[in-house]
Amino acid sequence: MSNMSNMSNITPVDITVTSAYQTKFGELWDKSLYDLIAETIHGVLKNSSLEKKDIEIVYFANKMASQACDQNHISAIINQILGTQVPVIRIEAACASGGVAVSQACLALESGKYKRALIIGAEKMTDLPVDQISYDLMHAASQQERDAGLTFVGLYALLAKKYLITFDATEKDLALPSAKNHKHAQSNPKAQFPFEISVEKIMASPLVADPIRLLHCSPITDGAAAVIIEKNKNNKNKIKIVASAQAGDTLALSQRETLTTLPATTHSAQIAYTQAGISPQDISFAEIHDCFSIAEILAVEDLGFCKKGTGFRAMRNGDFSMGGACPVNISGGLKACGHPVGATGVKQIVEIVTQLQNPTHTKLKKPLVGLAHNIGGTGGTAVIHILTK
Amino acid sequence: MSNMSNMSNITPVDITVTSAYQTKFGELWDKSLYDLIAETIHGVLKNSSLEKKDIEIVYFANKMASQACDQNHISAIINQILGTQVPVIRIEAACASGGVAVSQACLALESGKYKRALIIGAEKMTDLPVDQISYDLMHAASQQERDAGLTFVGLYALLAKKYLITFDATEKDLALPSAKNHKHAQSNPKAQFPFEISVEKIMASPLVADPIRLLHCSPITDGAAAVIIEKNKNNKNKIKIVASAQAGDTLALSQRETLTTLPATTHSAQIAYTQAGISPQDISFAEIHDCFSIAEILAVEDLGFCKKGTGFRAMRNGDFSMGGACPVNISGGLKACGHPVGATGVKQIVEIVTQLQNPTHTKLKKPLVGLAHNIGGTGGTAVIHILTK
Repeated sequence: MSNMSNMSNITPVDITVTSAYQTKFGELWDKSLYDLIAETIHGVLKNSSLEKKDIEIVYFANKMASQACDQNHISAIINQILGTQVPVIRIEAACASGGVAVSQACLALESGKYKRALIIGAEKMTDLPVDQISYDLMHAASQQERDAGLTFVGLYALLAKKYLITFDATEKDLALPSAKNHKHAQSNPKAQFPFEISVEKIMASPLVADPIRLLHCSPITDGAAAVIIEKNKNNKNKIKIVASAQAGDTLALSQRETLTTLPATTHSAQIAYTQAGISPQDISFAEIHDCFSIAEILAVEDLGFCKKGTGFRAMRNGDFSMGGACPVNISGGLKACGHPVGATGVKQIVEIVTQLQNPTHTKLKKPLVGLAHNIGGTGGTAVIHILTK
Repeated sequence: MSNMSNMSNITPVDITVTSAYQTKFGELWDKSLYDLIAETIHGVLKNSSLEKKDIEIVYFANKMASQACDQNHISAIINQILGTQVPVIRIEAACASGGVAVSQACLALESGKYKRALIIGAEKMTDLPVDQISYDLMHAASQQERDAGLTFVGLYALLAKKYLITFDATEKDLALPSAKNHKHAQSNPKAQFPFEISVEKIMASPLVADPIRLLHCSPITDGAAAVIIEKNKNNKNKIKIVASAQAGDTLALSQRETLTTLPATTHSAQIAYTQAGISPQDISFAEIHDCFSIAEILAVEDLGFCKKGTGFRAMRNGDFSMGGACPVNISGGLKACGHPVGATGVKQIVEIVTQLQNPTHTKLKKPLVGLAHNIGGTGGTAVIHILTK
């Protein structure tokens, strides 16, 4: 499947992040999708010296508005809020919608046609009945897998089973990312679940799809996030995007050659490291797509933070905890900060910008380099951004 | 609302169209959305000297797959068909999805990161019950308008009423675009309705929303279209995209200052003409978004082909018929060729490429310059492309 000979997008990236904003993530029953969008636009402009009229193009990431709000054409609502007539492009790429929106906005600036882009990711999920949400989320999996009765937790359970068998990891190892991410979330005021959960409690939570338990799973969340990016700014002391890479893969796991790697992650990582001119060991901290805890274990390996089959050992060692070699999901990740699907990829960028501006931990590897890893489905889409100061 | 001071995307466009393909449009009950996508990929590659592995990035325009096929993550299915891991970006912008996908692909090439992009627009609509299709299409209108009981034909009926009153046009004038487009469709083997319909028959068709009648409306259609575009090719005798512009507007008509103009069209047209360095009078022929016949009358005025309030007179005069000053909708337009919503904007480009290669009419203004005009909703989004040889 690999197509590395065709790796044309390895030219360097040099984009400045001017502003970032995130709403509280959680069950926001008193806020509509439009309220969340309006709040992020207001917030991201307030955090900058820009006005509405300064925005030249907008990318809007959202997966479920058609089902959750009976509304598809939100691009026009965004122009209504901004009071502009700028192009607004709605991006839908399952749970990678946010990451794809950021990478498309980078392309728009690199084209030279636009100097300043606003990226908004927003999702309103908790108003829908759980059965409908589950059904609608499965629109991002293959028909064959759904016909076989598989859900996303079932698909990731297949990956987890294969991983445990292949690398002699234990069920306890599957609890480690969740426990770590909840611990990290304690200091994130925007997190949906900002409290600790012990490994024991995680291991005692109900099995959903063997070996995946309830507390290995990211939640259903409402929330939004936004960033403004610019080209040709004086880059001194500014936060920069130095890599932006997207790769794809087959939709169905049954079409893959491996179940212990997500090739879209390895492929996009290779492009991103080449763009940035760095190696995985240069990354100071990362926001990783931990939709299920096994996803984080696969990702730290696929991103090259440690060798294939050793992610769970590095996790045991605390390498990805605060104070470790490369803290992962300082925000709490999808598990504890929450996972409003269209917003997640944008929120990862917001979190990295926040850490680059005011690191919550003084022991981070210098120079500060943050990586965001956003996945759609079971790796049918992967997007990686690398930011530095 | 206008934001022309912010018109940053007026730099020239220079993109080569390498290949184009369109499936038959119609009620294709023996074909799935995936069949249509596979056929266009096969067809557009066969019409070129390229192979699957030559495609570096894909833009996929679709509005309704989530509702019509319970499938959102088609980007991964496209990689499965291509056997690649390239970025595939799904674009949804109501009925302007295809035009937005083409314009985003142009940006991707202009960024210098990609040399060759495939754009696919596909929609499978006729499998759904008509009530559901109507409801789902309304996801592209504002909640307030829907709460008031308005449908798209109702919204366009408001525009039509206002037009007839303001400019002293007659109900017969509303029949002229439909009659012309059906006449044009006779020579298009891909058209859904390739036969003539008389003005009398159109005027005798049932009223749907006064003054709009059934035969003023574009149909529900299945179909797909694709183009491959390239950068930095030897442009001699090649077909080029010389302008690519998108503009937005409010979602609701109630927020607009005028009902006799779609400002997103005038705004994007101004950018497109500036990019191409031409005036409206230089256009040889155009594919225009005639979702309802009033939309074509508004558009020929908003695009500057004639003065505001004179479009119906120019139509009476035959200016937009084959043999006229600027034939509009040689393909048959949305009315007679069909309107598979996500495919329409891409099919417009395919049609213009076809006409530039082998003009069906020898009296076209020289040099040959074709314009494509794609609208989302009631003008919340507008996209314009200009092509020449």
